[in-house]
Amino acid sequence: MSFLSDMLAAITERGRSLVDFTSLSQATPMEQTAALCHSLLSSRGEASALATASEILLRYRAMDSGGKLAFFRMLLQDFGPDMKPLVAAVNTFVASPNERAAEALHRLSEPRRQNLFRMLNQSAQGTAELIQMRAELLALLPDHPELDPVDKDFQHLFRSWFNRGFLELRKIDWRTPAAILERIIRYEAVHEIADWDDLRRRIDPSDRLLYAFFHPRLPDEPLIFVEVALASEMASSIDSILDPDRTIIATEKADTAIFYSISDCQPGLRGISFGNFLIKQVVEELRTNLPQLNRFVTLSPVPLFARWLSRHQIEDSEMDALSQPDWWHDAKAAPVLEKKLPALAAWYLTGPRDAAGRLLDPVARFHLGNGARLERINWLANTGNAGMASSHGIMVNYLYKLDEIERNHEAYASGQPVAVSASVRRLATGGARLLETTHTTGGKS
Amino acid sequence: MSFLSDMLAAITERGRSLVDFTSLSQATPMEQTAALCHSLLSSRGEASALATASEILLRYRAMDSGGKLAFFRMLLQDFGPDMKPLVAAVNTFVASPNERAAEALHRLSEPRRQNLFRMLNQSAQGTAELIQMRAELLALLPDHPELDPVDKDFQHLFRSWFNRGFLELRKIDWRTPAAILERIIRYEAVHEIADWDDLRRRIDPSDRLLYAFFHPRLPDEPLIFVEVALASEMASSIDSILDPDRTIIATEKADTAIFYSISDCQPGLRGISFGNFLIKQVVEELRTNLPQLNRFVTLSPVPLFARWLSRHQIEDSEMDALSQPDWWHDAKAAPVLEKKLPALAAWYLTGPRDAAGRLLDPVARFHLGNGARLERINWLANTGNAGMASSHGIMVNYLYKLDEIERNHEAYASGQPVAVSASVRRLATGGARLLETTHTTGGKS
Amino acid sequence: MSFLSDMLAAITERGRSLVDFTSLSQATPMEQTAALCHSLLSSRGEASALATASEILLRYRAMDSGGKLAFFRMLLQDFGPDMKPLVAAVNTFVASPNERAAEALHRLSEPRRQNLFRMLNQSAQGTAELIQMRAELLALLPDHPELDPVDKDFQHLFRSWFNRGFLELRKIDWRTPAAILERIIRYEAVHEIADWDDLRRRIDPSDRLLYAFFHPRLPDEPLIFVEVALASEMASSIDSILDPDRTIIATEKADTAIFYSISDCQPGLRGISFGNFLIKQVVEELRTNLPQLNRFVTLSPVPLFARWLSRHQIEDSEMDALSQPDWWHDAKAAPVLEKKLPALAAWYLTGPRDAAGRLLDPVARFHLGNGARLERINWLANTGNAGMASSHGIMVNYLYKLDEIERNHEAYASGQPVAVSASVRRLATGGARLLETTHTTGGKS
Amino acid sequence: MSFLSDMLAAITERGRSLVDFTSLSQATPMEQTAALCHSLLSSRGEASALATASEILLRYRAMDSGGKLAFFRMLLQDFGPDMKPLVAAVNTFVASPNERAAEALHRLSEPRRQNLFRMLNQSAQGTAELIQMRAELLALLPDHPELDPVDKDFQHLFRSWFNRGFLELRKIDWRTPAAILERIIRYEAVHEIADWDDLRRRIDPSDRLLYAFFHPRLPDEPLIFVEVALASEMASSIDSILDPDRTIIATEKADTAIFYSISDCQPGLRGISFGNFLIKQVVEELRTNLPQLNRFVTLSPVPLFARWLSRHQIEDSEMDALSQPDWWHDAKAAPVLEKKLPALAAWYLTGPRDAAGRLLDPVARFHLGNGARLERINWLANTGNAGMASSHGIMVNYLYKLDEIERNHEAYASGQPVAVSASVRRLATGGARLLETTHTTGGKS
Repeated sequence: MSFLSDMLAAITERGRSLVDFTSLSQATPMEQTAALCHSLLSSRGEASALATASEILLRYRAMDSGGKLAFFRMLLQDFGPDMKPLVAAVNTFVASPNERAAEALHRLSEPRRQNLFRMLNQSAQGTAELIQMRAELLALLPDHPELDPVDKDFQHLFRSWFNRGFLELRKIDWRTPAAILERIIRYEAVHEIADWDDLRRRIDPSDRLLYAFFHPRLPDEPLIFVEVALASEMASSIDSILDPDRTIIATEKADTAIFYSISDCQPGLRGISFGNFLIKQVVEELRTNLPQLNRFVTLSPVPLFARWLSRHQIEDSEMDALSQPDWWHDAKAAPVLEKKLPALAAWYLTGPRDAAGRLLDPVARFHLGNGARLERINWLANTGNAGMASSHGIMVNYLYKLDEIERNHEAYASGQPVAVSASVRRLATGGARLLETTHTTGGKS
Repeated sequence: MSFLSDMLAAITERGRSLVDFTSLSQATPMEQTAALCHSLLSSRGEASALATASEILLRYRAMDSGGKLAFFRMLLQDFGPDMKPLVAAVNTFVASPNERAAEALHRLSEPRRQNLFRMLNQSAQGTAELIQMRAELLALLPDHPELDPVDKDFQHLFRSWFNRGFLELRKIDWRTPAAILERIIRYEAVHEIADWDDLRRRIDPSDRLLYAFFHPRLPDEPLIFVEVALASEMASSIDSILDPDRTIIATEKADTAIFYSISDCQPGLRGISFGNFLIKQVVEELRTNLPQLNRFVTLSPVPLFARWLSRHQIEDSEMDALSQPDWWHDAKAAPVLEKKLPALAAWYLTGPRDAAGRLLDPVARFHLGNGARLERINWLANTGNAGMASSHGIMVNYLYKLDEIERNHEAYASGQPVAVSASVRRLATGGARLLETTHTTGGKS
Repeated sequence: MSFLSDMLAAITERGRSLVDFTSLSQATPMEQTAALCHSLLSSRGEASALATASEILLRYRAMDSGGKLAFFRMLLQDFGPDMKPLVAAVNTFVASPNERAAEALHRLSEPRRQNLFRMLNQSAQGTAELIQMRAELLALLPDHPELDPVDKDFQHLFRSWFNRGFLELRKIDWRTPAAILERIIRYEAVHEIADWDDLRRRIDPSDRLLYAFFHPRLPDEPLIFVEVALASEMASSIDSILDPDRTIIATEKADTAIFYSISDCQPGLRGISFGNFLIKQVVEELRTNLPQLNRFVTLSPVPLFARWLSRHQIEDSEMDALSQPDWWHDAKAAPVLEKKLPALAAWYLTGPRDAAGRLLDPVARFHLGNGARLERINWLANTGNAGMASSHGIMVNYLYKLDEIERNHEAYASGQPVAVSASVRRLATGGARLLETTHTTGGKS
Repeated sequence: MSFLSDMLAAITERGRSLVDFTSLSQATPMEQTAALCHSLLSSRGEASALATASEILLRYRAMDSGGKLAFFRMLLQDFGPDMKPLVAAVNTFVASPNERAAEALHRLSEPRRQNLFRMLNQSAQGTAELIQMRAELLALLPDHPELDPVDKDFQHLFRSWFNRGFLELRKIDWRTPAAILERIIRYEAVHEIADWDDLRRRIDPSDRLLYAFFHPRLPDEPLIFVEVALASEMASSIDSILDPDRTIIATEKADTAIFYSISDCQPGLRGISFGNFLIKQVVEELRTNLPQLNRFVTLSPVPLFARWLSRHQIEDSEMDALSQPDWWHDAKAAPVLEKKLPALAAWYLTGPRDAAGRLLDPVARFHLGNGARLERINWLANTGNAGMASSHGIMVNYLYKLDEIERNHEAYASGQPVAVSASVRRLATGGARLLETTHTTGGKS
């Protein structure tokens, strides 16, 4: 790749002498940038196109956030489809609605932005720069929903470029280049990696593995990764997994693989889903290389449980203890809450739905939609501050059972009840009842 | 890549058990295949989708040519855009022709074939199989022009997947894996490679180089390659380049790189142009690694010259010698023809245009359109049977002058006269006059 | 490695300017070379040492065979141990025969040739050149046994440099660089590889494998390789293994690995044994990757059988048929010989010993000494001209049974009877009796 | 390599079942170990030899330091040359002192330890374990000089195995596997690397490089490495080189390469010199890749200067300031000392010799012996605690001038005056005079 980059840089450099950037000097900077974009779309020479693309990206990078907003607005207004020929094509279609007319419609209704992005992509660091550009667009989108069509164009192209067929699964270990490991430290989003020693504890011992997806055009940039612990039983607590003083077991002694952390690395690729396929591919990889493994399970957070619970005004004095700091060290309160919280969590994860008919918990949606089964609710599984605050310390196991995955997946997709173990089903029933009997004024869902 | 293939194969295998292929048993084979395609488009599970895609490709491969024709017809008829929602979107657009309505048009006018191809692409050898499928479609197209929309969909996807940003330039030499070298032997289309010894003479000596483009998903399949001879002067004859007994010169003695053969390897990628960029990238590569090189030139065939000439009934008894076998060994005829044929070739290459306003010679169109200059006409440069039959033994040099390429390219694209050396210009003028004065009934063009 | 070579070449080049080669001009060429060798041993600078070593090797290469003989004689006479200090050390030892005195003896009795070879080895292609030098010495040795001490020094150093710990096992297949495959074709010594197609048939199909040992300093030079056929039974004929039209079986269908050809590649490394360890390492490699394999067996020639047999004047008219060409197509002679030849071969392989107490057949010595068992004698197993001439078409299987190898090896080493199957034992007994009863005047052994 | 290790481990495992370790149970542990060593020397089977070697190394590792001392004594006493045949060979030689008799002497005077080490070396981690074993022997040697013959055997074998021809130079950067980088942090012996951020500052910026030598059998273990700073002038202070806030310059702006740290990594390889060749090879590498560099210089410590100076009772009140803490911040003392200390250092580095006729400073011996020139004395170049304590803050530049290296090297080796710049020569003369005039009772040299 670096060879290709060097070549592109050399050609770009040669092209700069061919493009007359000075003619732009009378316009405002944004008018100049727009002129460059138009010029790029109509350019014919390799080198001048590369030089123009590179100049546009340089200018973009130098903009402050106001400038970037203006840039995206310019893309929205100036680089949609060309309306005049499109209207003509529509008229032709109305007169005679056949396949040929549809083809013309399709061609002419494509926003010119897409071609612009394709040409920007050809410059040396093009793909990385466009991912960054979209990340900044996504940050603006909540306040500027009118920019959504620009994002749609990014999505369309990224889906094609990051097609699963192009992704490469790599095992990350202590022999991996530091340039990549450094990014793993930075991108871990679920259970923070404190430093290089902490990282080593997650990739070097015989019972720890880490896998990541890469794309050929971004050879040092992981797209998504998953951390795996090998064990002889289903883990019930993240604290025990991350404990620096835990007992390391030999690879061949393990029969269970625990996926305890999945992190997306590229905000600019949001919505271009990889996680789904990553888990399945890692399962196949592990089954091939470590045939003694017979259980594949996650240890997952329940991120919105505490928030959901707080919205219900539950009239249950026993649960008031939750508002005390460190209630879980309280010998009286803890056993009581241990009877109630897991049941409520089980219900929260599997019962209520939002307006769109979806489960409330995003992690549950991901794994259950992916074909896993909610296997177990774990009490006091994450006693860190964040874990106690977001989920009262509860974590859960989703079980990927190979001969059930597809069936669960199809069942979930067609709206049937979610797959749960018998014990979780009992808990959830209890949780639902508890909620009915105790809360007076319903919170939202 | 092979790892990914294994994984895909394993998942596919698992998926087969989930898809009920027997339910298809009552329909005709083509109805079954169509049903599988519909099922693929609506499938939700990873594994069942992969199994279905794999089954479709298996069935396609097993079809005879009649079956494949029927398959493409089925794709044409059943997998265009869904007309009903498209008509509705058109009506919305007519009522209010804005960007949002255009976006709907664009989305709904996309033929469903494209998504079908995207999903077939995800199976283990998907990309290679689709390239093969298109090659077979292209062979049918002349007799079945109505299938053109299916080809358009292939083109659209291949342009995206084989985007230059994904291509990788590799030097091919005697340390390259045999699996790749074997394909180089098979794919060489200009100057046939007789056997492994012949191949070695083209990649192993210090004054011979070969570069190819690869795609990450087809790691052993060259897409296009170029053969380069290093020399201390512009070559005037292919015979001397391919001579097994020629004197090998040291790399550092050379100042000229001669591109003497460019071969496209994948008929299924016809029209997805790589050659243009390949030459420029190889020039940059050579300039970086061998800074002593200062001339980059081709030694190219003139493939249609003899055919063109034969269409003109030239009344010139001196040229009747051309119909004798081995006229070029005839001490009387040869000197006379040496005065006339190069001039006619120069004119043929630069003067006459076809109905679409294009130069007649496809190789000339490629290099001149690419920014090169027609530098020299070489007499008796290729005295093999094929060379004598197609071009009366003439070959030409196109010169890639770094600081002219872009200008020539732009000039060519805007219809200005093609770039030629002074001597070629004189020859062409002579050739035009010769033609005027001697031929009575004009041939076409 | 090539990087290291470049560096050495650059340093050598620099060193040339420092060494005054002209001062040598008055002596004879061999005196000059001797002077360079002395100068190398006493040189102190890196660069001048490299330049001197390189000059010596250059001169050696340019010598004709008479010159090389003189060169080795010069090494013998001028570069043995320095006798004067050695005699002094011997006297010290005689006076007081302790460890310290022994150490001095050891140091001073080392021929100076060894240090000379060590310094020659440091030049860019040093190792390869020294291997070539020894190959040429070995060719001279039969007529010049006095050069044996020079060979002893080569052996001593090569044993250290080609210590097993430095060897690297590589699988050779159709993805291997052509530069290596070309050598495999050239070096195959048992069953000639006709061309690249023949090579491909031995490394590309799912039931064919080839493994070679390499040394880090000679990355493209195989040292020894073994060809393996996977099958579902013990092969009884090389013709069926090499048949281009045979049925290929899937890897996972095989339960037997047949080692049908082992070739040493470097004549200059004769006596530095690798074959022993190669077979065992390949067995481990196969067991790890293809656990379904449960039988490891050779298909081996019996190279000296026909010669041995001809030395016995056997008075048996039935065996006279052997002198007819193509006797094995003779419907009368063949069945008779089939009863006698295998028995004689079994006896030849396991019974008679030479003056040194060794088995007569070198291949038998290798495999039986290596721990294998002589399992089966195969009739008409190699009907090529060479096979019929050397062994009347007989080949044999040596079986490597994992839990027997060490025991057999130890038994063989301590002079116990060789390991054979029951059926081979019966045959051998019959062969011995046949010989007793039929031959009148004994041949040697 | 890891593949080879796996194979060796598998064979070893198989061998364990063949060796009857229980028969050893009656002896003391050290008697058992000695018996295993004898058994290894006489073993015939591959597997049993590997199992025995592995068992010996296991037992060695488990010994406490008393046990290890006993182990080395056992090697000394039991595994020297076999005296009986050696005495016979000596007698033969005395009777007839020829080459053949010398060869026998050489063979029989080799301590059996060498063969023992060769066989231990063949086990999976053999080389690494022997290096560790020698490191522990070296630590015992000062108190147990009688063990020196054992060390001699290690040296002899290591010189052969770590022959320059086997070493591989690698560039270490931020893309290097973390397993190697971690060792770089650990092994840096001159200017400590504080953490991963500090490491990154030394290998990632465009003006910092690090090169290391590796051996094929120890692929993740650097043997020695050198750190290089690129600059546009000869550095006069380590503080400025290591400053985290320094200005980074572009590679192509630099004309000087500064070798500011060289660290040996393997105590067990002490005396097997690599540094000499490392510097020269890195110089060639830099010259090839960065032709704009024209100055190669070290920034080196003067480790024993302060100790040397303190041994002279200098009667110079101005120099008493040296005993104050932080004297270099004292506006009165500092300028005075700046006049005297550099001169004394110049003299210390180039003038006095020890009993063996060698320069006093080990770093000076290394670089001057290597062909460099002492170019400059730098005042207040290392103001860290260690630097002030050992050398009063002085550091020096040794200049590697390509066309002088060999000449200087030869001159040094033949005892001529060391190579110094004119300014250093003047300083040294001054320093010598200063010493003469001021000190009364001479310290040792």
